[in-house]
Amino acid sequence: MDKPYKKDSETSYALGAFPTIELIKTRPESVDHVLVASSFTDTEKVKDLCKPHNIEVIVNDKAVSKLSDKENVFCIGVFNKFNSELEKKRSHICLVNPGNMGNLGTIIRTAIGFGIKDLAIISPGADVFNPKTVRASMGAVFRMNIKYFESFSDYKALYPEHEVFCFMLNGEKTLRLSDCPDPDLFTLVFGNEATGLPDSFLKEGTSIFIPQSDEVDSLNITIAAGVGMYAFTKGRNRE
Amino acid sequence: MDKPYKKDSETSYALGAFPTIELIKTRPESVDHVLVASSFTDTEKVKDLCKPHNIEVIVNDKAVSKLSDKENVFCIGVFNKFNSELEKKRSHICLVNPGNMGNLGTIIRTAIGFGIKDLAIISPGADVFNPKTVRASMGAVFRMNIKYFESFSDYKALYPEHEVFCFMLNGEKTLRLSDCPDPDLFTLVFGNEATGLPDSFLKEGTSIFIPQSDEVDSLNITIAAGVGMYAFTKGRNRE
Repeated sequence: MDKPYKKDSETSYALGAFPTIELIKTRPESVDHVLVASSFTDTEKVKDLCKPHNIEVIVNDKAVSKLSDKENVFCIGVFNKFNSELEKKRSHICLVNPGNMGNLGTIIRTAIGFGIKDLAIISPGADVFNPKTVRASMGAVFRMNIKYFESFSDYKALYPEHEVFCFMLNGEKTLRLSDCPDPDLFTLVFGNEATGLPDSFLKEGTSIFIPQSDEVDSLNITIAAGVGMYAFTKGRNRE
Repeated sequence: MDKPYKKDSETSYALGAFPTIELIKTRPESVDHVLVASSFTDTEKVKDLCKPHNIEVIVNDKAVSKLSDKENVFCIGVFNKFNSELEKKRSHICLVNPGNMGNLGTIIRTAIGFGIKDLAIISPGADVFNPKTVRASMGAVFRMNIKYFESFSDYKALYPEHEVFCFMLNGEKTLRLSDCPDPDLFTLVFGNEATGLPDSFLKEGTSIFIPQSDEVDSLNITIAAGVGMYAFTKGRNRE
């Protein structure tokens, strides 16, 4: 019987049809089984997706209701958590101590949208496999390579060739459309939603300030990450 | 006695010290009173802000607990809802049928951050005065002129000089750093989080596509709005 998610569980849950279908399409080897409510309207579609991979689809109203945690959910993908290494030849995003699972999921969705598929998380950080993160990502988490590191220097030691850009309210370079940096291989670094990046990151690479009014304390971290990733990727004419 | 918020209430609540302080600083005339818990550590600071405006600060643990709705809140600003007209000589953002109060609040915070202070909402739309919206905006809602309209044509009739840009997945113009439109007076239009803008908006002005991978269904509406507002405002060198 499937149990409520805990951080040390070996399996987790994609809540809802969209994230579950993303899971089956992109990581079929990680799917343990799929749960559906008897009222779910797309059961046949999900079964067709599952069949080539011999994934079992189980109708179980009680389990769906119990696991869905008040959300309006009729389909749940049960998956084994996976480990992944980051690609050395692709640009990365690095989140230092992200605190909120909804924000983490939204940033992952945005990153995939802008073509960034490798995420480093500096511990402690929110759990990418928590069902809340998975759901906020709309299943984009299954397309991402994600690795946790004890410190930023541990990360940097593995990927010394990446040019580092740290997004900070006291960043030295203001991000403008007309002269956004245009490196081939980069890491965009964002801090915790409440505290931002510590000043020590001023020396880790080029520190970047997204111009903003002093009438707000700061931009929401998901917005800062969205603007930063847009400017460094899809905002370019070359794509 | 202060009652739980309803949509037709004449008063609403800023939950938390930061939004409450924003309220007192920017709209003192709208504050009815301020509630604080006996454990609140900044009571003296809030009293000092309230004093010049003769705003009463009441210590009432029970009321704070009851109104804070599970959130970790020790200070609540009770305010009278206000109406505001949009400035004809400033650029606007227009949200068509926004559905989620958290998203609405985040978009308001972002807009103020990028210097856009006038918001049109096409009904039906989420309630800007709901405490959830106010809190998600971090109090930025108090710096915003906000007006609801029955239809986009009602809005357009009042502001015929604004150049209209509609953000749509099937938009005709791709938003790039190098050739972002640069109008003096504009309205940026965004649709509902689940459905986007109807195709009829293709003809309301220039339709804009934020380049993104087809590996996600779309960007989150808050991210699309953030990127769009950045590109049209603070991304410019002139500011």
